[in-house]
Amino acid sequence: MDLYNLMKNRRSTRDFSTKDISKATLKKILKSGFLSPSGIDQKPFIYIVVDDNKIKSEIRRLCEKSDKKYFEKSNNFFKEWIKNKKITFKKDLLEDAPYLIVVAGDTTKPYWLESTWISISYILLAAENEGLATLTYTPGEFDFLYNLLDIPSDFKPVVIIPVGYAKNKIIKKADNSNAKIHYNRYNIQ
Amino acid sequence: MDLYNLMKNRRSTRDFSTKDISKATLKKILKSGFLSPSGIDQKPFIYIVVDDNKIKSEIRRLCEKSDKKYFEKSNNFFKEWIKNKKITFKKDLLEDAPYLIVVAGDTTKPYWLESTWISISYILLAAENEGLATLTYTPGEFDFLYNLLDIPSDFKPVVIIPVGYAKNKIIKKADNSNAKIHYNRYNIQ
Repeated sequence: MDLYNLMKNRRSTRDFSTKDISKATLKKILKSGFLSPSGIDQKPFIYIVVDDNKIKSEIRRLCEKSDKKYFEKSNNFFKEWIKNKKITFKKDLLEDAPYLIVVAGDTTKPYWLESTWISISYILLAAENEGLATLTYTPGEFDFLYNLLDIPSDFKPVVIIPVGYAKNKIIKKADNSNAKIHYNRYNIQ
Repeated sequence: MDLYNLMKNRRSTRDFSTKDISKATLKKILKSGFLSPSGIDQKPFIYIVVDDNKIKSEIRRLCEKSDKKYFEKSNNFFKEWIKNKKITFKKDLLEDAPYLIVVAGDTTKPYWLESTWISISYILLAAENEGLATLTYTPGEFDFLYNLLDIPSDFKPVVIIPVGYAKNKIIKKADNSNAKIHYNRYNIQ
C-alpha cells in the first residue's frame, strides 16, 4: 500500500451499494480513528454506528427535509456546484450504505472541532485502505440527532459518514496541480 | 506499509534534530495535503513553508512570549498535563526542525476549519510515512504571523507544523483500548 496513491485514489462517494461489510472491518476502521492525535490527548469525540434500519430511515427523512430547505436558500455558487455534481436533496445513500458513522465532538474540550476532524480523516483513509467508500456528509442541520441517538448535550454532531461499497467504479483523482506552496512568505511561491 | 501501524506509530514530537530533509520529500508531503477532501472542493487553505533562519527565530521568539503568557493563565488540568509531558514555553523545536509548515485556512469558504484540519492530518501521515516527525503546534496566539509571513486577512493561521527528524527514538503508542464505539444510540456500547 502506497500512502500517496491511497490518498489520491480516495474519492467521496454518493452512490452506495447495499452490500454489507464485516463488523471486524468496521471495527478496525473505527479503531483507526482513535489513533489520531488530539488536543491534550483528550480524544474529544464519539462515534455512533447506525445500522438499525428504522433509525437509518428516520435519519434519511430528516436529512432530506433539512437539505431541501438548505439547498433552496443557498447561494448560486453552491447551487451550481451541486448541479454539476448531480447532487440533490435525495439521500438514498443514508439507507443504502450498511453503516452510518455519526461523529460528534465534545464541545467542552480544547481544540475539539480540530481534533474531531483529524479523527474523521483517519476514518476516511482507513476505510479506503479496506476498499470501502465513504462520504463526509454534513446535512443542513444536525439537531434532530440529539433525540434520535441520545447524544449528550455537551457533544455536537459534525458529520455523518456512510461506509460501504461504492455502487459504481470510482473515477480516480487527477494528480493535483493545485498544490500551491509558499516559501517563507505568502507572496513567494 | 500498513496504514493501521503507520497511524499507531505516529507520535507528536517535541525534540527535533537539526538534520535536514530533502526538498523533494517535503514537496511530496505538502502535495499529499492537497489530496484531502474539502468542503465543496475548495481546498480552503494555504501552506507557507518557513526555512529562513531569521524568520524561524522570530517565530520562536514570539511563540515563546505567547506561550509563557498562555501557560500562566491556563487551568490546573492543562498545567498538570504540560508538566507530565515536560512541556515548557521554550520552543527549541521551532529552530531545530529544518522546516516549519504554517497552515492557514480561508475563512470565507464553507467548512474552512474542518477542511483545513483534514489536510493537516494528511500532512501528518505523509510525513510519518517518510520517516519524519511532526507536531501540531498551536501557540497561544497566531496574530503575529500575519505581518511576519504576509498572510492575507481572509486567512486564519491554525497550526505550525515543524517537520524533520526526531532527536530521540519515539516510543510507540500502546494499542488503543479507548476506542469506545456506540451502536445505534449513545447508550448502547
